[in-house]
Amino acid sequence: MGRAPTTTHPRTREYVAALADLIVRFGANVQPGQIVALGSEPGKEELARAVAESAYKAGARFVDLAVFDPYLKRARAQYADPATLRFVPPWYGQRVLALGEVRAARIVLTGPVAPRIMDDIDPALAGRDMLPALRESLTVVNERTTNWSVVPCPTPMWAQLVHPDLEGEAALSRLWDEIAHACRLDETDPVAAWRARLDQLTQIATRIDGLRLDSVRFVGAGTDLTVGLLGGSRWVCGRLETVGGITHAPNIPTEEVFTAPDPERVQGVVRATKPLFAASRLITGLTVRFEDGRAVAIDAEQGADTLRTLTQRDPGAARLGEVALVDRMSRIAGLGTVFYDTLIDENAASHIALGGAIEEAIEGESDIERANRSELHIDFMIGSDDVEVIGVTREGREVPLLRRGSWQV
Amino acid sequence: MGRAPTTTHPRTREYVAALADLIVRFGANVQPGQIVALGSEPGKEELARAVAESAYKAGARFVDLAVFDPYLKRARAQYADPATLRFVPPWYGQRVLALGEVRAARIVLTGPVAPRIMDDIDPALAGRDMLPALRESLTVVNERTTNWSVVPCPTPMWAQLVHPDLEGEAALSRLWDEIAHACRLDETDPVAAWRARLDQLTQIATRIDGLRLDSVRFVGAGTDLTVGLLGGSRWVCGRLETVGGITHAPNIPTEEVFTAPDPERVQGVVRATKPLFAASRLITGLTVRFEDGRAVAIDAEQGADTLRTLTQRDPGAARLGEVALVDRMSRIAGLGTVFYDTLIDENAASHIALGGAIEEAIEGESDIERANRSELHIDFMIGSDDVEVIGVTREGREVPLLRRGSWQV
Repeated sequence: MGRAPTTTHPRTREYVAALADLIVRFGANVQPGQIVALGSEPGKEELARAVAESAYKAGARFVDLAVFDPYLKRARAQYADPATLRFVPPWYGQRVLALGEVRAARIVLTGPVAPRIMDDIDPALAGRDMLPALRESLTVVNERTTNWSVVPCPTPMWAQLVHPDLEGEAALSRLWDEIAHACRLDETDPVAAWRARLDQLTQIATRIDGLRLDSVRFVGAGTDLTVGLLGGSRWVCGRLETVGGITHAPNIPTEEVFTAPDPERVQGVVRATKPLFAASRLITGLTVRFEDGRAVAIDAEQGADTLRTLTQRDPGAARLGEVALVDRMSRIAGLGTVFYDTLIDENAASHIALGGAIEEAIEGESDIERANRSELHIDFMIGSDDVEVIGVTREGREVPLLRRGSWQV
Repeated sequence: MGRAPTTTHPRTREYVAALADLIVRFGANVQPGQIVALGSEPGKEELARAVAESAYKAGARFVDLAVFDPYLKRARAQYADPATLRFVPPWYGQRVLALGEVRAARIVLTGPVAPRIMDDIDPALAGRDMLPALRESLTVVNERTTNWSVVPCPTPMWAQLVHPDLEGEAALSRLWDEIAHACRLDETDPVAAWRARLDQLTQIATRIDGLRLDSVRFVGAGTDLTVGLLGGSRWVCGRLETVGGITHAPNIPTEEVFTAPDPERVQGVVRATKPLFAASRLITGLTVRFEDGRAVAIDAEQGADTLRTLTQRDPGAARLGEVALVDRMSRIAGLGTVFYDTLIDENAASHIALGGAIEEAIEGESDIERANRSELHIDFMIGSDDVEVIGVTREGREVPLLRRGSWQV
């Protein structure tokens, strides 16, 4: 009776409790009386329950659990009428909009629980619904009505994917150690450590903003890409504020400063520096060529079809919505591990994203109108020590931003 | 790669597939193009995934999984402000009403996954929200807009509760064997077996209806209870039809014939013949005294407080909404096992339910108005071989209905 069954490792048990408290108290910053929407998957029960406990202790009114099972998505792709695969019941989006209306908190536990189950499914079918992603989530993010946070949750199959050389228990234990380090749970006061890091990233974002850049260039190791910016593009880091003034960190961990580019002014070729998972498929050796903002050629060693299908989804899906810079002080860069999960990997290296922009990073109605409004948002890593990042000011002056992974501003 | 992890017992794997097909093809009778709402709990993934596969093979448009985690309910009762414990987000009920509007199918996997976790929680707190039950479910049931079915799903902790004398694997294996037998999965053609049993129960219901009873008396083994009926009370069995004409079996297994009593004409004392679980609490040795339809005294060896709290919920919660007769040909009666789950146990013996009536069992607007409209519905078993069931006709004639567990009609 009483407690839920827990993992047998006392250290992991401490990580679970510490991570739950960090996400509730700092990441989402749950306020007394709030509803807390909690997105989870089978296999993440231990952390989900710890988050719920922590949220109720913080005064939450109700924890609204929504579990997404990727095996049901697989069954659908396998057996349902292909003509119905885009359908999502209207109450999925209505719930998300209602969460915004009541000013709820939102927490999502990420990390692939069954990373390879779509391998034998036709990518043209697998990518057709975007679940668990919903277009309404982007609406709510842009309206800034919810304080939200996405946090990784280690699970056995994910650990096996990241550490194929280790046995089950050892792989999981290692993944927990890495995630704990990336989330600064190994600091005496993780919240203070995050405040310090976000203060630092805020200063860098402010300095880049002061340069009044017209574009950003990535050069080296097969990449020569120019990403044009909007007049209203603003550099920000992963510390946001709701319309009601609740500060929150939408990603734990977060190491990036980013902005929304001009979706019509991206030119050149970019080579991904890490593999990525999109629509439950592995994409490796990716190169993309952009002309006038549009991805006109997508090639890869593996998974190109998946990405091509995704970029045909809507008019903005083949254009950029985000450009982000990450320095080598990032704890994830330091680990040197590929996690096959965007939340973590995108904080290891500078990256760009195909799809919708975060409006928080744009000022002015006319530029918000011009920004990418796709319902897609797929980040991929393009930075490394061998890729130099150069800012070009509106006056045409070149300013180094990152060289060998270190800030130059 | 591909398949979900499954249990190691080949026989259990066969049971899972057979039970999934039975509930999809016969229980809920899923139609091509339907949305299928699937209610599950952590630990029931294997059956939930098999149900989804079977539903998509049957032409389902979308399987809408909703997972309820009882550990979150426990955390809420432990840590949330008690003043907020009745709150349920409005989108919970809206989803259920929307399922009715779009004429969805609904499937629920029952069986307690964590049966004892509320033992140390104040019953006054534990019973305050009724989740996962929702009042809107009763609305949708009564509007007959969804074809639905509730089916048991064996899980390890439930197996330990039912068979405390067996080791983990053996207990689970035994519970599966029993559930498979109760669900007639051991028949060559389970669907044909269910059709035959429901034909038989339909005939018995028709015969009792023909008696034009004014009340039903239960006499023996500490019970002497008279349950008055409405003029419009109709005896039915567990085979219903939606407004659109989709036949379905709302409970698998089902062995009962039942009707909706007059909530103001119940007199006498009744002793429960089996323990029950209500609001996650065990209630044993229950006796209830009724006066003019109202439960005026609730006593028990264990759990009386829980039931007293529940019956104070709304005006109908202390009155009856169902009276049901079960004969000893029931496969569950034959097993002799106490399952601590209403879906199974209520089909082992005649029973009554405190709370809302099923309108399918009432004819005529005025009697539907008079029937119990509580949002509570708690069945408890009052039948055994030692309890005789006697019908009293409108002319005052006594007609034996069940004697030593055998039909007399």
